[in-house]
Amino acid sequence: MASFQDIGLSAAINLLSAFAFLVAFAILRLQPVNDRVYFPKWYLKGIRGSPTHSGAIVSRFVNLHCSTYIRFLNWMPAALRMPQPELIDHAGLDSVVFIRIYLLGLKMFVPITLLAFAVLVPVNWTGGTLEHIKDLTFSDIDKLSISNVPSGSKRFLAHLVMSYVFSIWACYALYMEYKQIAAMRLRFLASADRRPDQFTVLVRNVPPDPDESVCEHVEHFFCVNHPDHYLQHQAVYNANNLATLVAKRKSFQNRFTYYNNKHERNPSKRPTTKTGLWGLWGTTVDAIDYYASEIEKLTEEERTERAKIMSDPKSIIPAAFVSFKSRWGAAVCAQTQQSSNPTIWLTEWAPEPRDVYWHNLAIPYVELTIRRLLMAVALFLLIFFFMIPIAFVQSLANIEGIQKVFPFLKPLIDLKTIKSLTQGFLPGIALKIFLILLPTILMTMSKIEGFTSLSTLERRSAGKYFWFILVNVFLGSIVTGTAFQQLKSFLDQPPTEIPKTVGVSIPMKATFFITYIMVDGWAGIAAEILRLVPLIVFHLKNTFLVKTDQDREQAMDPGSLDFAICEPRIQLYFLLGLVYAVVAPILLPFIIVFFAFSYIVFRHQVINVYDQKYETGAAFWPDVHRRLIICLIISQLLLMGLLSTKKAMQATPLLLALPILTIWFHKYCQGRFESAFVKFPLQNAMVKDTLERATEPSLNLRAYLQDAYIHPVFKGGEMERPKVVDEEESSPLVQTKRNSVKSSKNNSESGNEGVTPDL
Amino acid sequence: MASFQDIGLSAAINLLSAFAFLVAFAILRLQPVNDRVYFPKWYLKGIRGSPTHSGAIVSRFVNLHCSTYIRFLNWMPAALRMPQPELIDHAGLDSVVFIRIYLLGLKMFVPITLLAFAVLVPVNWTGGTLEHIKDLTFSDIDKLSISNVPSGSKRFLAHLVMSYVFSIWACYALYMEYKQIAAMRLRFLASADRRPDQFTVLVRNVPPDPDESVCEHVEHFFCVNHPDHYLQHQAVYNANNLATLVAKRKSFQNRFTYYNNKHERNPSKRPTTKTGLWGLWGTTVDAIDYYASEIEKLTEEERTERAKIMSDPKSIIPAAFVSFKSRWGAAVCAQTQQSSNPTIWLTEWAPEPRDVYWHNLAIPYVELTIRRLLMAVALFLLIFFFMIPIAFVQSLANIEGIQKVFPFLKPLIDLKTIKSLTQGFLPGIALKIFLILLPTILMTMSKIEGFTSLSTLERRSAGKYFWFILVNVFLGSIVTGTAFQQLKSFLDQPPTEIPKTVGVSIPMKATFFITYIMVDGWAGIAAEILRLVPLIVFHLKNTFLVKTDQDREQAMDPGSLDFAICEPRIQLYFLLGLVYAVVAPILLPFIIVFFAFSYIVFRHQVINVYDQKYETGAAFWPDVHRRLIICLIISQLLLMGLLSTKKAMQATPLLLALPILTIWFHKYCQGRFESAFVKFPLQNAMVKDTLERATEPSLNLRAYLQDAYIHPVFKGGEMERPKVVDEEESSPLVQTKRNSVKSSKNNSESGNEGVTPDL
Repeated sequence: MASFQDIGLSAAINLLSAFAFLVAFAILRLQPVNDRVYFPKWYLKGIRGSPTHSGAIVSRFVNLHCSTYIRFLNWMPAALRMPQPELIDHAGLDSVVFIRIYLLGLKMFVPITLLAFAVLVPVNWTGGTLEHIKDLTFSDIDKLSISNVPSGSKRFLAHLVMSYVFSIWACYALYMEYKQIAAMRLRFLASADRRPDQFTVLVRNVPPDPDESVCEHVEHFFCVNHPDHYLQHQAVYNANNLATLVAKRKSFQNRFTYYNNKHERNPSKRPTTKTGLWGLWGTTVDAIDYYASEIEKLTEEERTERAKIMSDPKSIIPAAFVSFKSRWGAAVCAQTQQSSNPTIWLTEWAPEPRDVYWHNLAIPYVELTIRRLLMAVALFLLIFFFMIPIAFVQSLANIEGIQKVFPFLKPLIDLKTIKSLTQGFLPGIALKIFLILLPTILMTMSKIEGFTSLSTLERRSAGKYFWFILVNVFLGSIVTGTAFQQLKSFLDQPPTEIPKTVGVSIPMKATFFITYIMVDGWAGIAAEILRLVPLIVFHLKNTFLVKTDQDREQAMDPGSLDFAICEPRIQLYFLLGLVYAVVAPILLPFIIVFFAFSYIVFRHQVINVYDQKYETGAAFWPDVHRRLIICLIISQLLLMGLLSTKKAMQATPLLLALPILTIWFHKYCQGRFESAFVKFPLQNAMVKDTLERATEPSLNLRAYLQDAYIHPVFKGGEMERPKVVDEEESSPLVQTKRNSVKSSKNNSESGNEGVTPDL
Repeated sequence: MASFQDIGLSAAINLLSAFAFLVAFAILRLQPVNDRVYFPKWYLKGIRGSPTHSGAIVSRFVNLHCSTYIRFLNWMPAALRMPQPELIDHAGLDSVVFIRIYLLGLKMFVPITLLAFAVLVPVNWTGGTLEHIKDLTFSDIDKLSISNVPSGSKRFLAHLVMSYVFSIWACYALYMEYKQIAAMRLRFLASADRRPDQFTVLVRNVPPDPDESVCEHVEHFFCVNHPDHYLQHQAVYNANNLATLVAKRKSFQNRFTYYNNKHERNPSKRPTTKTGLWGLWGTTVDAIDYYASEIEKLTEEERTERAKIMSDPKSIIPAAFVSFKSRWGAAVCAQTQQSSNPTIWLTEWAPEPRDVYWHNLAIPYVELTIRRLLMAVALFLLIFFFMIPIAFVQSLANIEGIQKVFPFLKPLIDLKTIKSLTQGFLPGIALKIFLILLPTILMTMSKIEGFTSLSTLERRSAGKYFWFILVNVFLGSIVTGTAFQQLKSFLDQPPTEIPKTVGVSIPMKATFFITYIMVDGWAGIAAEILRLVPLIVFHLKNTFLVKTDQDREQAMDPGSLDFAICEPRIQLYFLLGLVYAVVAPILLPFIIVFFAFSYIVFRHQVINVYDQKYETGAAFWPDVHRRLIICLIISQLLLMGLLSTKKAMQATPLLLALPILTIWFHKYCQGRFESAFVKFPLQNAMVKDTLERATEPSLNLRAYLQDAYIHPVFKGGEMERPKVVDEEESSPLVQTKRNSVKSSKNNSESGNEGVTPDL
């Protein structure tokens, strides 16, 4: 068991490394040459110009004003200064709500920490159990935890009351946050500018019709069933092949530029390359000529593919983006069932054009359910079979363990450097490699599940990652971390015993998690702000590829908040905080530091760096909330298990009410707020429609929506849109549809009207 | 353990009693005097006239044609003869689908039985385990069950394969049934006549407004947010007091009639009554005068109350029935969210007027969630605390148990009659009394939960009753039935052990359940057709209250299918069938007899007797389906538990896939069919609207819907409807709404139109 000194040393090391990162950041960010790495958002907004344009040559690359170095932490107050409404304008609601998760952590844990230190620490400290035990090494840290309270003591009443107080406070903080974010989202949507997705519904599983093409079928169906509101639709082309070709051509174009630059700098020698993979083997050819001809070839192929897509009716997939004349009409269509067969004509709000995941638009219903089943099983296997290699590697890291498993390695292990290397780094690194690999796997699984927008894919991946972290990092560290031998006995015992087994191990693991928080949390966040990988990539690109300012613009990689990775990690800290709040309050200050530091760092990044790929208006919050509730319930169950082994039996029935009330609280919040994140109320739609009709009576909505939802490879006006049933359209004015089915029967009547009917 | 002889004897007794019921029924139903008890449905339809009007006096009451008695079972083919479409017309879709549950039982279990007897019975019979055990009494019945197969035998492969075959067959039968019933429902709704609920949406939680009354607020909200479709609305009055008064007056009226009749028959003596409760105590008064004056008083009170409701704005509760000009408009409003606050302006399809449960229309959202939480906890306690008295009584029924608990009763118990009485009847009767009491309690709980229609209340009660039967009748009989001492050890063991414990006991309980099926199933159904209680009540009323034919009409009580009680009981038989299909196939024929017999009996009752109170178009089917899936999964888990104790370990992982696949199947069916039962697709609404507009262009929908949704106590034209914002309405023609918000801004344009705008 680690003592105060050990923890203090570890804290000092991690603080120093975090400090080193911050100093490095402070120095690097002030160099004009790195400006595009640390402030790309401002370039994208067009507010910041390249500092390399003016001034002396040296000062273009290096900052020589010493005064700026002194105030090397002055980005921190700057990051906090921007007020929230301005920040929403600047960075979007998604980012703002994301950094509010850290703020929520502070709101939740600062009062809990104060209370825990005021009440529980004295109660534990004077418990006096550990002093009487001779054969067990214990430290001062453990004397602050619940381990120091004797079994069956009346002191557990304090823990019981505090667990109620903490749970109630956590729920209150969650409730207020949910309420505020729901209000922010509604305000954001209400004040949002006109966007194509407000008028558009994604229709999937258009049934095949022997007499009509997909386009005609969609047109007719919506003309009949939404006669007053239907405006037009956009067919979806299967352009996956084309997209591959375009991507390939772009990569060849890059290499072409690279060799061209090389040749310009050194005109005496024409660069060569090899035709095989990665240019590593195959026949040697002249690089510039080779890539020029390849690009030529690909451009030709692209043209053929493009023509084929436009002419072949089979390249239109049975899905469409259907636009309506008003937000009201779109809201109605998105929320209702169209056909008596609920697996065809599926309607949902169209994601933002940037947010569409084009690959998944054409999956039939049966296939979709099978894919989800397979992925659920795969996730289960992934979560529970990853555990074995981690535990295996960690047990190897134990020198005695290695000697037992591979006795022939003994001479090697006895070398001192190998020994310390194995013991010090392997467990952490093995875990880290797994964790780096994992998000890609999970994202692929989500893609297979068939969701149609990038934001949903990220949300689903985050959900999977959360369970992975919960089982493998949290439970895995607590139960199997110390003894690999425990794994089998743990798998063999019944579910009701798990809270007890885990609960008992929790107090012993406090120091491990404190170290984890410092390494992964503190130093990790400090590394985040340094942006080492984008820094290197930018300078490489800048050296080899960039010729014009436009190239430099493209070489800039602002990146974005990776919700699928970051959010589940935050959840781990919430979980640790909630679990240890009652058991070992000493852990709480470390978590508070993590939340505060992360909040500042991410606020800075959101303001200066990240450029979100899409905007969903904080649609992810219900997921965050649900997972926080899960963390809360886990902490309550584990406390119940722990107390039941401490012979505080009268506490168990009282604690039983906590998870039930928490689940009820979750249901309540769900009913109260969740629909603000999944539905668009008709009242709000009507208000926005009316306002728009009053302020912009001559808006040509049809032209506005014309090309909103075409596949990105067609962007750029190269595509002739097939005119299907648009012949009747003549008036550029968008009118409220006034002729229903009836008017087609009664033409003399509709003929009287002042406007041209635009059916 | 019971032998073949015991079972045979029991079967003979039960068959005889069922036969006796049938003979009694055959005789009673042929007596003209009972005609209204056994054929009330035809009277309600006005097809059948009173046979007591013509003929000799004796033949008015007794059937003297001997030939009719000979064919005493001829109601059976008659019950089966009516084809399904005619039956739907005659009795409604609810009843038809309900009796199809029995048919589903036959479809599911006849092939399973054949297969089980062809494959599993020979495998079990030749297992030869029980022959080697000397100290255990076993019977031929047990030799047919899985108990006869030795542990670790390869024979379990047969059971494994069969469990897959049975599950697949059950799922296939369920799928076909769900598909067919969804199609029937859609056809039924499509062909249904015009009904008020097709145009009406129930709006609840209308927010309070300081400036407007509820009526004005509703009117304005829907005029703004559904401008093209809103027609009118019907405010809901809090008439609970008035309803009580009316009910009281009716009961007094009955007594008045009774004493009047008594007096007429015996004019010499004026009847007297007592003023206290039930006429049992209090001062003695002249009955006719007393009730006449009481009725007078109540009528007066009723009038005051009626006036008070009409004048007091507080008697209008914040809910309303909002009607639309088209089914399309109503479908849109019912399926969308109206306000950004999802706890106000809640819209749902209005239930049929007869189906509305008026008490629950005004419960606010927070109260509703609290009520549901409390009822969930109450249900849990009810289910798990009922178990203790049942087990207690059943253990008392064991003579040795009684002597142990109450040693002073020993002399009494030693009396032979008491002994046999206790041993024979007490366990069954105790269970039966609980079961009779229970549905009322569960219905009250559902009412507290705050559902707004009688059909939902019944469905929710059925769900509660199902869990009760599952835990107390099924699990309770298997585990605690034999040994009360097992209860505690059962509660102490972890959940994973439960399938094993229960699974082991299952084969031993086969004979118990065979007896249960015969007593509760066979004889119970035969008693159902006799309608003993309605028979007695009708003759009592006929003797004391009836003077005119109209009175006789009212004395008739056709009753209705009690879904909340009958459906969960059927589920028990499905559960037994599925559980024992692999374990002890001998039970299956008994279940088949139950399903076949019930099917015929309920078909007869549905044709001739029951008069459903409301029609939901089989909206309960998703519940039935879900519970059948639960039964299937329970049977799979128990088999897994049983096989794992039989050391057929290689079977467990293979069996693990079954529940996962079954859950997936359920999800698939849910996505595929459930929305047909909860939503009304826009396409179908549009088709019906268009058709109606073509066939009945001059329909006055406003007049049609005027009084559709008024509280039943106001029915009969006594109520003046408050005219709120109806002044603008002038045209009796219902037009498709053609002027949107825009037209109010642009009057010159709408003035051009041929029809009067009816905004």
